[in-house]
Amino acid sequence: MTGIIEPRILKGFRDFPPEAEITRRSLVERIEASFRLYGFVPIDTPALEYAEILLGKGGGETEKQVYRFTDQGGRDVALRFDLTVPFARFLAAHRNELSFPFKRYHIAKVWRGENTQRGRYREFTQCDFDIVGSGGAASDFEILLMMKTTLAAIGAGDCTIHVNHRGIFNRFLSRLGAAGQATDILRIVDKIAKTGREEAALQLAGVLDEKKAGAVLDYIEPRANFEETLAHITEASGGDTPESRHMERIWRYMNDAGIASSFILDPSITRGLDYYTGIVYESFLAALPSIGSVCSGGRYDNLAGLYSKEAIGGVGASIGLDRLISAMESLGVSGRSGSYAKLAIACVDEEAGGACQKLAGYFREKGIACEVMLEAKKLGQQFMLAEKKGLAWVIIPGEKPLSSPLSLRNLASRETKENLSLDQAILELSGTSGFRTEDA
Amino acid sequence: MTGIIEPRILKGFRDFPPEAEITRRSLVERIEASFRLYGFVPIDTPALEYAEILLGKGGGETEKQVYRFTDQGGRDVALRFDLTVPFARFLAAHRNELSFPFKRYHIAKVWRGENTQRGRYREFTQCDFDIVGSGGAASDFEILLMMKTTLAAIGAGDCTIHVNHRGIFNRFLSRLGAAGQATDILRIVDKIAKTGREEAALQLAGVLDEKKAGAVLDYIEPRANFEETLAHITEASGGDTPESRHMERIWRYMNDAGIASSFILDPSITRGLDYYTGIVYESFLAALPSIGSVCSGGRYDNLAGLYSKEAIGGVGASIGLDRLISAMESLGVSGRSGSYAKLAIACVDEEAGGACQKLAGYFREKGIACEVMLEAKKLGQQFMLAEKKGLAWVIIPGEKPLSSPLSLRNLASRETKENLSLDQAILELSGTSGFRTEDA
Repeated sequence: MTGIIEPRILKGFRDFPPEAEITRRSLVERIEASFRLYGFVPIDTPALEYAEILLGKGGGETEKQVYRFTDQGGRDVALRFDLTVPFARFLAAHRNELSFPFKRYHIAKVWRGENTQRGRYREFTQCDFDIVGSGGAASDFEILLMMKTTLAAIGAGDCTIHVNHRGIFNRFLSRLGAAGQATDILRIVDKIAKTGREEAALQLAGVLDEKKAGAVLDYIEPRANFEETLAHITEASGGDTPESRHMERIWRYMNDAGIASSFILDPSITRGLDYYTGIVYESFLAALPSIGSVCSGGRYDNLAGLYSKEAIGGVGASIGLDRLISAMESLGVSGRSGSYAKLAIACVDEEAGGACQKLAGYFREKGIACEVMLEAKKLGQQFMLAEKKGLAWVIIPGEKPLSSPLSLRNLASRETKENLSLDQAILELSGTSGFRTEDA
Repeated sequence: MTGIIEPRILKGFRDFPPEAEITRRSLVERIEASFRLYGFVPIDTPALEYAEILLGKGGGETEKQVYRFTDQGGRDVALRFDLTVPFARFLAAHRNELSFPFKRYHIAKVWRGENTQRGRYREFTQCDFDIVGSGGAASDFEILLMMKTTLAAIGAGDCTIHVNHRGIFNRFLSRLGAAGQATDILRIVDKIAKTGREEAALQLAGVLDEKKAGAVLDYIEPRANFEETLAHITEASGGDTPESRHMERIWRYMNDAGIASSFILDPSITRGLDYYTGIVYESFLAALPSIGSVCSGGRYDNLAGLYSKEAIGGVGASIGLDRLISAMESLGVSGRSGSYAKLAIACVDEEAGGACQKLAGYFREKGIACEVMLEAKKLGQQFMLAEKKGLAWVIIPGEKPLSSPLSLRNLASRETKENLSLDQAILELSGTSGFRTEDA
């Protein structure tokens, strides 16, 4: 015992030093700005809830991963492992105060004791958005549109959204006489992008006869374009139905809004989760399709069934933030930076600390984030420190910071402009891109 | 068993429906914008840590309140109960990657199993900011300045910041021959604002003789102004010392920066916590002094002593968000709103859902947040729904949403302007205050 405790953190958990945290927040802020433009509103729920609420009637795989314990008051509690279950509980609890259709987003941390060898984290941020209380194609379409514009707004480049309809698939399976094997079939088909068609065929042969397995493989094969695929699955599922008309309407909306080229009708998309009943979708970055879907979701008929007798249906999606951040880093568009400020005021004389803060105040009033150096080290050391922190410019104040002429050092070019008035310095800086805090 | 689980939440925990969450975020966003203008950078740390890290060498009151349990891997873990201890651990772990002086903020949830009868929450947000690695008066002053400008920037009105120096107080107590009773005296003095002078005198009489108790009561009495109080405590603590010169320099900075009138030198401010060694401060809203300090802190010499052999000193403060939110609600300046959007596009014909989204896109491109109504209910019902959500305007599209003239309904005045082009409608809305999302 040296008396020193090793400052370690738990496996699967992370510190976010400034550069990583600024990157993460900058992404979250752009996502939120996009959601807000659509009139979506944020909610938050407790990190800790009754285990009974989060786990419902038992939960297999999930249950093993949940951080669950007995609190000081003897309550059986758990940390939330997703934002879907707390949202269902929230809807059941607050339905009388909310206005429907209710469009909400929720960006928050969740915890799962996952196997970290698979590159998973035990603490990570989820980003969910849903429209609840409207069953029409217009809400399905709004979620799809918001996915597309949000992924564009954050600079992830072009994306393609693969859409399918679980209801049409279910009709097809019933018609095929394979409704009893639906769960197995959906799971096999859901993994086809990873396993490949041959492996899927083998697995299907384990639950269906050869002819039926062939029919499923034929059904999930996309045709030449959205319309032909829609015609094909409509026919295969027994012709014109409410579900096929719903899908057709979404397709019309896509065309009317001029964004149809971003969507593929892909009957192999099923999403593993049981609660999806309508359309389901996954989205892939054109520049990095191999990393898998960065935003996925679907329509559900009855989200809050565990907590409420009234069915609450909706449609929503979730953005995989960690995946998106590493994608954007691979693409070189993450905009990593160690500071929101680009400007520092050098400290020439520690006695002038008050005046230097007043000088900095003029820049801050103009929306120019400005760090004040606190110690009168050699100027060269101050330039190095500023550069290390990610700043681009340093003001060197004169003897009287508020009245003497200023010098402005460009840290990249190592040039210094001398004899500037405050207004001239502000003008120099304002002409530089990315200068105002709002641009950061 | 009805099969329905009651959607209850744990005592002391809260849901944040949109209106409460928008209020909370709007406050946090303004605080962050202010921090960023000073070049402060955000960090984040895990919610869950080794209990040994969070509780150090045992912790009395705190320890009883901590959510602590054994995880799936048999580790003794706990939820963080503040942001100071994780910051100390973070500094010890990352000191070689960071540039000092290091100016960071951390806004995040913490958990304490407090007695909720005292109006406390068991999950609440802390907002800490610190400058680490610089011992000069310039960093103390920067924290004080940032407190003042941040409280002004969020619309909390005028505030007065009470400052004191624990080092000067300690010198006074040594000189008085009462250093051995320092902890008791600091605790008694710390509560004087609540208990009153008479009760404090009684309590002091329990630990000091009458003359010494009288000297303490005399010491903590503010004089006519900052300078006189400083002269008084300097003399009482033995004359000119590094600590009194440090305080004098801060006072000079306040004057040079033109903000001296916001500060009171108040020798009765001690802050209960053991780790403070230099200046300490509390801040009070001029309009609501009775709610107590909304932002407090001080300087510490050795924050990470448990995890590192090298001393890490700094100065910082913490904003009491919950207290500030309720203060701002009392003052009627919280700006409560149920939506970031002010505009909706009415749904006249569900077939036109795609075209209406395209129409909404034109407003969104201009930075005008715009919600699209999803169901073709009666217009009156749509107006009511929009108003309930906190919107101010509704666009009623014509037969062809993208080419027919538009109508614009003002929900407050119940007036509708007809026959507008898209540009005219944007012009009408842009003239309205608070319309762009950035203003929200």
